[in-house]
Amino acid sequence: MPLRLDAADAGFEADFAALVDARREADEDVSTVVREILADVRKRGDAAVAERTAKFDGHDLEKTGWQIDRAARKAALDGLDSKLRDAIELAADRIRTYHAAQKPEDRDHTDAAGVRLGARWSAVDSAGLYVPGGRAAYPSSVLMNALPAKVAGVDRLAMVVPTPKGETNPLVLAAAEIAGVDEVWRIGGAQAVAALAYGTERIAGVDVIVGPGNAWVAEAKRQLYGRVGIDMVAGPSEIVVVADGDNDPEWIAADLLSQAEHDPTSQSILFTDDAAFADRVADAVKRQLGTLATSAVATQSWQDNGAIVLVRDLAAAIPLCDRLAPEHLELAVADPEALFARVRHAGSVFLGRHTPEAVGDYVGGPNHVLPTGRRARFASGLSVLDFMKRTSFLACDAASIRAIGPAAVALAEAEGLPAHGRSVALRLGS
Amino acid sequence: MPLRLDAADAGFEADFAALVDARREADEDVSTVVREILADVRKRGDAAVAERTAKFDGHDLEKTGWQIDRAARKAALDGLDSKLRDAIELAADRIRTYHAAQKPEDRDHTDAAGVRLGARWSAVDSAGLYVPGGRAAYPSSVLMNALPAKVAGVDRLAMVVPTPKGETNPLVLAAAEIAGVDEVWRIGGAQAVAALAYGTERIAGVDVIVGPGNAWVAEAKRQLYGRVGIDMVAGPSEIVVVADGDNDPEWIAADLLSQAEHDPTSQSILFTDDAAFADRVADAVKRQLGTLATSAVATQSWQDNGAIVLVRDLAAAIPLCDRLAPEHLELAVADPEALFARVRHAGSVFLGRHTPEAVGDYVGGPNHVLPTGRRARFASGLSVLDFMKRTSFLACDAASIRAIGPAAVALAEAEGLPAHGRSVALRLGS
Repeated sequence: MPLRLDAADAGFEADFAALVDARREADEDVSTVVREILADVRKRGDAAVAERTAKFDGHDLEKTGWQIDRAARKAALDGLDSKLRDAIELAADRIRTYHAAQKPEDRDHTDAAGVRLGARWSAVDSAGLYVPGGRAAYPSSVLMNALPAKVAGVDRLAMVVPTPKGETNPLVLAAAEIAGVDEVWRIGGAQAVAALAYGTERIAGVDVIVGPGNAWVAEAKRQLYGRVGIDMVAGPSEIVVVADGDNDPEWIAADLLSQAEHDPTSQSILFTDDAAFADRVADAVKRQLGTLATSAVATQSWQDNGAIVLVRDLAAAIPLCDRLAPEHLELAVADPEALFARVRHAGSVFLGRHTPEAVGDYVGGPNHVLPTGRRARFASGLSVLDFMKRTSFLACDAASIRAIGPAAVALAEAEGLPAHGRSVALRLGS
Repeated sequence: MPLRLDAADAGFEADFAALVDARREADEDVSTVVREILADVRKRGDAAVAERTAKFDGHDLEKTGWQIDRAARKAALDGLDSKLRDAIELAADRIRTYHAAQKPEDRDHTDAAGVRLGARWSAVDSAGLYVPGGRAAYPSSVLMNALPAKVAGVDRLAMVVPTPKGETNPLVLAAAEIAGVDEVWRIGGAQAVAALAYGTERIAGVDVIVGPGNAWVAEAKRQLYGRVGIDMVAGPSEIVVVADGDNDPEWIAADLLSQAEHDPTSQSILFTDDAAFADRVADAVKRQLGTLATSAVATQSWQDNGAIVLVRDLAAAIPLCDRLAPEHLELAVADPEALFARVRHAGSVFLGRHTPEAVGDYVGGPNHVLPTGRRARFASGLSVLDFMKRTSFLACDAASIRAIGPAAVALAEAEGLPAHGRSVALRLGS
């Protein structure tokens, strides 16, 4: 049974606070072993990567080949059935279009003091994309991570993907080909992240590393943060659905389960103002779980982390949602705009009864890599900005340095930095 | 003697590569002690903070007071001499204006398929600002960190600043008052960062933590990254000056020393195409060092980390600068625009002979918190974006979900996620 809360109950605040504070992230401490792997790859390069690939992935890179070449990626794409290929291409087109509009504009203007000020954006030279092997290897994830890099203008996008026992995933390769990935390396784990960050004999180092992975991969990225840029610290994902009683309970149940089927640590929460509707959704969830191929995972997630919260009116749900700062927020109501205007913290919002979160996972256009675990309080979804950086600039002439320079000299002196003051003062007399 | 390189020499590439790869960052491993401090503050709150403040800062918070109240901050501001007050206010105005123009625009449009897509930016609720005690306590740094938060729209900005033996820095308090800091806590070190991140009985937790600090502070921020947002991993700062022989060598020498006087680990590098000019600058540096109050620090920095690089022509310097990806880049030439167009990686660029980097430290307008240690390859200076986050949104109606939904169903099925497929498929027939 998932948690069932009623905002009118006396103990509600304590129970809801416990729901907000519940940590679903594993506290497995892999920092020491990851630190060793990073140091070893940094020191021994390819040899350190190859040994771990043999051990963990069960194949010899010298035999299977370090890279999956362009021909193999094209063959994977050509081998797709046409319906699936059309679907991936529609998704890629929509994601590309949405992200192209994210490209920031440069600034350059001269102010009243005669000082020219501005900022210029540029793409990083190279980026690395981690793609998990096994269950979590999703072509949609390849598109969502690779396309923003390419739209940003990254010249070289190197993907790493473990191929346990040498086996590759054709869907992932096809998505990489559509997204314009430049290199695909048959490696994974912390050793692959280290190879991307430090570079090895074969693999040139990159500037930014993105993409989902297991605890070792996440810890490797965290330890390398600062040496390279990384996307974010990701945790188990979640959905909050705010729904009135006029919805079809089957639709809402399917939405809750679409999150629950990802992982036992996923979380699905329904807010509604209609107790009878809440019961109908709970029944529909139970019924749908019986027919779902992913039932085992979804059942565990729903039982351990699911919740139904009854509120007096739906507007009262929004401040509660803000405390959860959910990755995904569905507003399944007649007038979603009114509620959306009050939302402060959410990774992505899905407006109205006909916008299931899952459509955004694939073909909506906005990125599906979103802040989890309450991080929408301060973090944003993946975007072209993660693959770009901004260079500010300033230009004074003889007159404008005289206008603003004396204040700089006064501050430099007050801060005890005389060379700062001198470098400005010397220009004031000219 | 600083390093002297000539790009025409046979061994240049190896020498320059060594300069690029030289690590000036201390490798002091404080991660274990910081981990203990964080855990202790998380568990014991104020008591853990007060004990460490007594031990490291030498005062009892119950007696000195946990906060520096508004009246004390106003008194510090009122006590400034008017020239300094005017200077701080000019700096604040210019920084505020520059950062106001950084505020990103929301997006909201409906595409040809009838899908409404967009993104909405909002400020984080609260931010924490670390301000060091002692030598590195600069009012300019308070302005540069606090104003972007306030411009972004952060409601609550809490500053922490250690006050060794209880002593406060009036310049820092005055800057905090001008910048609109909401709370000032008399604490520092990793314990202050922990208090901001986790919250204690007295101190409410924040969403983002910014500001410079020592190794313990930097490590605390790194360990808390992901629980809160942080600004960046900062290292020793650097300047690269590209100058032709028509410059006044005294000006260029002062610019090099303005970086060198910060810290022995700072780095100042001159690129020029004029060997005689290089000699004149080296002589001027020597001469100026003799009269500088910060001579000890500046001399060590210049000798240990300084460099003069002779190039055939200045355009050839730019790809070399890109490899250094310097925090600050001065283009002291007649036509800086032509060189700037070729620059790919730099935190901030100062154009022309009348734009010393130091003017940007104080009153230029762009932020002086910039990526160091080659991080300009992938990172940007502090901006309002560090205090904001983006919520994407999507809205389909019955017609548009029919247009794009089938592709989502196909992909969900291919990825083995049937509840995803069902949540979309249920809406297609309606």
